[in-house]
Amino acid sequence: MISLGGGLPSSAYFPFDNVSVGVPGDNLFSEKDIHEYAQKVTIGMHDMKEGKSAYDLSVALNYGQGSGSPQMVRWVTEHTEIVHNPPYQDWAAVMTVGSTSAFEMCLRSFCNRGDYFIADEYAFCSAIEAGRGLGIEAVGIHMDSEGMIPSHLDEVLSKWDEKERKAPKPFLIYLVPTGQNPTGSTQGTQRRQEIYAIAQKHDLIIIEDEPYYFLQMDKYVQGGSQSNGSSVTPGSHDEFLKSLTPSYLSMDIEGRVIRLDSFSKVIAPGSRCGWLTTSSKICERLMRHNEVTVQAPSGFSQAILFKLLDEHWGHGKYLDWLVHIRKEYSTRRNIMLEACEKYIPREVATWTPPAAGMFLWFKIDSEKHPAYGKKTPREIEHEIFEAVVDQKTLLAKGSWFFAGPEGTDPGVYLRATFAAAEESAMVEGIRRFANALRVTFGLPAQA
Amino acid sequence: MISLGGGLPSSAYFPFDNVSVGVPGDNLFSEKDIHEYAQKVTIGMHDMKEGKSAYDLSVALNYGQGSGSPQMVRWVTEHTEIVHNPPYQDWAAVMTVGSTSAFEMCLRSFCNRGDYFIADEYAFCSAIEAGRGLGIEAVGIHMDSEGMIPSHLDEVLSKWDEKERKAPKPFLIYLVPTGQNPTGSTQGTQRRQEIYAIAQKHDLIIIEDEPYYFLQMDKYVQGGSQSNGSSVTPGSHDEFLKSLTPSYLSMDIEGRVIRLDSFSKVIAPGSRCGWLTTSSKICERLMRHNEVTVQAPSGFSQAILFKLLDEHWGHGKYLDWLVHIRKEYSTRRNIMLEACEKYIPREVATWTPPAAGMFLWFKIDSEKHPAYGKKTPREIEHEIFEAVVDQKTLLAKGSWFFAGPEGTDPGVYLRATFAAAEESAMVEGIRRFANALRVTFGLPAQA
Repeated sequence: MISLGGGLPSSAYFPFDNVSVGVPGDNLFSEKDIHEYAQKVTIGMHDMKEGKSAYDLSVALNYGQGSGSPQMVRWVTEHTEIVHNPPYQDWAAVMTVGSTSAFEMCLRSFCNRGDYFIADEYAFCSAIEAGRGLGIEAVGIHMDSEGMIPSHLDEVLSKWDEKERKAPKPFLIYLVPTGQNPTGSTQGTQRRQEIYAIAQKHDLIIIEDEPYYFLQMDKYVQGGSQSNGSSVTPGSHDEFLKSLTPSYLSMDIEGRVIRLDSFSKVIAPGSRCGWLTTSSKICERLMRHNEVTVQAPSGFSQAILFKLLDEHWGHGKYLDWLVHIRKEYSTRRNIMLEACEKYIPREVATWTPPAAGMFLWFKIDSEKHPAYGKKTPREIEHEIFEAVVDQKTLLAKGSWFFAGPEGTDPGVYLRATFAAAEESAMVEGIRRFANALRVTFGLPAQA
Repeated sequence: MISLGGGLPSSAYFPFDNVSVGVPGDNLFSEKDIHEYAQKVTIGMHDMKEGKSAYDLSVALNYGQGSGSPQMVRWVTEHTEIVHNPPYQDWAAVMTVGSTSAFEMCLRSFCNRGDYFIADEYAFCSAIEAGRGLGIEAVGIHMDSEGMIPSHLDEVLSKWDEKERKAPKPFLIYLVPTGQNPTGSTQGTQRRQEIYAIAQKHDLIIIEDEPYYFLQMDKYVQGGSQSNGSSVTPGSHDEFLKSLTPSYLSMDIEGRVIRLDSFSKVIAPGSRCGWLTTSSKICERLMRHNEVTVQAPSGFSQAILFKLLDEHWGHGKYLDWLVHIRKEYSTRRNIMLEACEKYIPREVATWTPPAAGMFLWFKIDSEKHPAYGKKTPREIEHEIFEAVVDQKTLLAKGSWFFAGPEGTDPGVYLRATFAAAEESAMVEGIRRFANALRVTFGLPAQA
């Protein structure tokens, strides 16, 4: 067959011959080891024709399919089966350019302007903003240390008055069940089962956005000395997988879950590559959406990820990498929590040790503030934020993540991350935050 | 300042040390030369800190800005100034994940469901489909060999009846002025000036989507022997740039043009990277759009393109590459046109030699078909398409690109591309297409 049909350029006109990437040697995962013992993997222009690889630049760098490259779709499908094993037959995966885009695609595909979707009362701000851009507001549900409270979710839905709200009852629920941004909360198995049951009762579609799923950590023991990185290393891949809280996808017997996975937190955000898993019918629609918008993730990203994940590592060694990353974040969390125990005045600020992710959420008791009653919670929050900046430190304001009605005054919260700062800077940052709290609340300086 | 604010992962957790790319040596642009004389450029994790480069993996692979990487924005801005030099001050550029996505962003940002946008009567099908997904239909304007006919555009807008159409008068016009897909037509300078004047009269925003802009070719001389690649090589970069038909952006004295550029046809489609140039006010809005959707192009793509375009080539050598690509496509076009002159029965099929791009558009005289009057034009088109497939060759149906009202019957057209098939296969493909026409129209076989 001679094709004069499609408008694909010839790969003879791509100004590249190959792409080589320095990737980690066997279990040599520290930054120093990656640099010193990097192994080179190479993607040639015609590796497929030459029988060298299942993927090459001539394909990766040309136009592809709306599903993403079949090679990557195959890999993420296998990975999803290993980790989640969805309990129904006709599920499928489609590649995305990241979960923010994937969530926005879902909003566009399921909702109309004026609709509402359900979210945690404090939620990922880009998700809230994506909705606002589409005229779709979030309805924030109250949270506790395990995230969304099922009884409040049921109450809001049961009492929904379409006339009063001028909108149909919401049927889309957005969750970050593990290491939620910004609160750091993780829903336990029972919490997930309760929410799934409410989704069945009210016929909801659950979007589970899980960038931090593999950053599930050991339980933090207060006062323990855990900052030396002595996190428990699982004895086997199976033990590691069993230690993870089951996903909504793994309990989805009715095809009502859309799971968003991302390489951003476990490989690199700049890959702009993730995937979405749900029933094949919904996948097909979202693939069509890709075709007239982003088309597919970058071919450079897909080829490099495939080379690393499939041909260099395989599924087992990728799990080893995840165990490594999880351990690193556990150590960072422990360092920050120990600094909090040492410095933060508990009479004005409290926190729950996060079981996953990269965020620590401080609840501030604004009633202890000298100007309580005269200043609004938002004003007190701003005063603390500014006092922290005066100490040359940055935290995120809780109100930036508030998903409740605009204008209503949330409680006072601040979010810190243990993701990026050097370890000594993290401790110093918490010390400065504590100082700022003492100044703002008129407490004596720490001895 | 210690930041515990943003949720950026540490680059210590990216499982990469460096990315190396084999790129063309000095003016060694053929596929064989690229392979044999590839030069290696390397992007390290911390090249910026080490003073080795203006960009590195620690930045490119982390979260970036909605505008795209400042390094790439700087490069495309310089390139745009060199090539188009927009005649007003406050223009700006923002990176996109390709022009299909960029156009869809514009539709979403400017139009409401139920609106119309203006397009050529035969237009890029993904643009039409992107609109349909949003409930925004195209209004197709008649075309001649130079694309959109200004008088018909003016007539449609002047006679627009908001009540009858149940929609406001369209103000967004979508054009592929150079090597248009599917018709291969290129608007001359005067045509562009006339359309710009109508845009001023009716206060239109012009979206010029120009993936084929640099694939402008020498004039084709019928019966000449040009398939030996003897296209004129310009004597200087300046001569090359002057040989290009001026863009709408270059004549935009009122900030009403949004130009979409793409690396897909001149570097590689799989880069999923392009940019958009317009007034800084519109750019700011589209950057916000990026922030809650795609965020930015892949960091692998941006880093590799920056390394190639800025640090390996610079602007001049990139123009050399464009001259090379243009020459390659000229040669391919000439080969296909000479095959057409040799084989195609002109009594039933006619074509205009394209001045740019990668498409050749055949107008079929359906009145010559034995079943004319009994079969609709679409049925005749389908019969030809199937006859071509019987000859083990593929062309694209014209009706796939029809932007007129659904159900109306367009004329009969077929599109061939000279982009990808081997040169001998192109000639054979045209010969088979000619055979299929002879069979369908009951003409005697060629001697």
